[in-house]
Amino acid sequence: MTLSWRTEVVAPMSGLAWRVAAGSLLRVVDVEGGQSGDVFAVAADDLSDGQSSGRTFDYGGTVRLSTGSVLYSRRSRPLLRIVDDEVGTHDFLYAPCSQEMFEIQYGATGPHPNCLENLTASLARFGVPPSTVTIAFNVFMNVVVGADGRLDIRPPVSTAGQGLTFAAERDVLVAVTACPAATCNGGDGARPLRVEIAAAAR
Amino acid sequence: MTLSWRTEVVAPMSGLAWRVAAGSLLRVVDVEGGQSGDVFAVAADDLSDGQSSGRTFDYGGTVRLSTGSVLYSRRSRPLLRIVDDEVGTHDFLYAPCSQEMFEIQYGATGPHPNCLENLTASLARFGVPPSTVTIAFNVFMNVVVGADGRLDIRPPVSTAGQGLTFAAERDVLVAVTACPAATCNGGDGARPLRVEIAAAAR
Repeated sequence: MTLSWRTEVVAPMSGLAWRVAAGSLLRVVDVEGGQSGDVFAVAADDLSDGQSSGRTFDYGGTVRLSTGSVLYSRRSRPLLRIVDDEVGTHDFLYAPCSQEMFEIQYGATGPHPNCLENLTASLARFGVPPSTVTIAFNVFMNVVVGADGRLDIRPPVSTAGQGLTFAAERDVLVAVTACPAATCNGGDGARPLRVEIAAAAR
Repeated sequence: MTLSWRTEVVAPMSGLAWRVAAGSLLRVVDVEGGQSGDVFAVAADDLSDGQSSGRTFDYGGTVRLSTGSVLYSRRSRPLLRIVDDEVGTHDFLYAPCSQEMFEIQYGATGPHPNCLENLTASLARFGVPPSTVTIAFNVFMNVVVGADGRLDIRPPVSTAGQGLTFAAERDVLVAVTACPAATCNGGDGARPLRVEIAAAAR
């Protein structure tokens, strides 16, 4: 089977969303290396049924997701499965960066691009309400959990051209952002991500 | 200052919610020992602004909450502060147990009491929509995060009469459940919790 891939670029500090049919593949590529992003999936048949970190931990039994891991929804339905992962270091603990976070942690005094608004705005085009958007799967974000529970955010280990591939377990809406937070990107959140989508064979 | 405490019992496998004014204290006591529960707080002035595990990790920098830790809302507002903790072992990773979880993990074939419905039903009396209820703070739930990210659920270490006390950082609605999931309670999820509330001095 020859898959036909469609390529989209998520510009630095922005977000895009797509409807992805069951069986299709979605690959996220770190174009330049060292850049993290947020992935948030919602079931297409219930726009309140978004992905859930806690539900995913229930069934996977780990906070470290990689090849073979399934992202579950609030209603315990499989949304995305990681079918290939060239990086292996991602985070599912931290909330999407937000306007308030940039004010509190970075001293921002005016509007700042942020993943929460980029996720909610891109998914709103499909009718997804803001309340559905909770904890995103933070691809390439490198967080070490210490034995005492302390969290340490380190630069992504992803190098240019590396990525991971999800298979849609059902029809989903998926948003992907290129994160603008310097802390999560080795000091610079101004790089793009590339998304490649291969439709399921019909 | 003499505080006047009001006592409520959360019956086994059930949940209750209260409006708690800023400055008031709410203490959750493990009456018999070895019993976990879920705590979920919502800002009284914005019923979509519920507590957020990821936002709490953002500002606290740890997945282990104890005395001094603040539970933050989606909008980055402080909701509850832990002011006393006799146990020190709680979880903020797992989702509330749900009907679907009992079907998938325990083979339930009919309706089973669960924390998600107990949280949403008790908060619904105050007008809180189900979409607000995400990851609860799982008091007394004992989860070890391995160096590889694997999660290991162990029996609670809380003994009879031990508890922890929250101070309300603003007017909040707070739901507390006594969890029915055997796995989280050393094999038996049929014990009550006690909640003691001391109103702020006026």
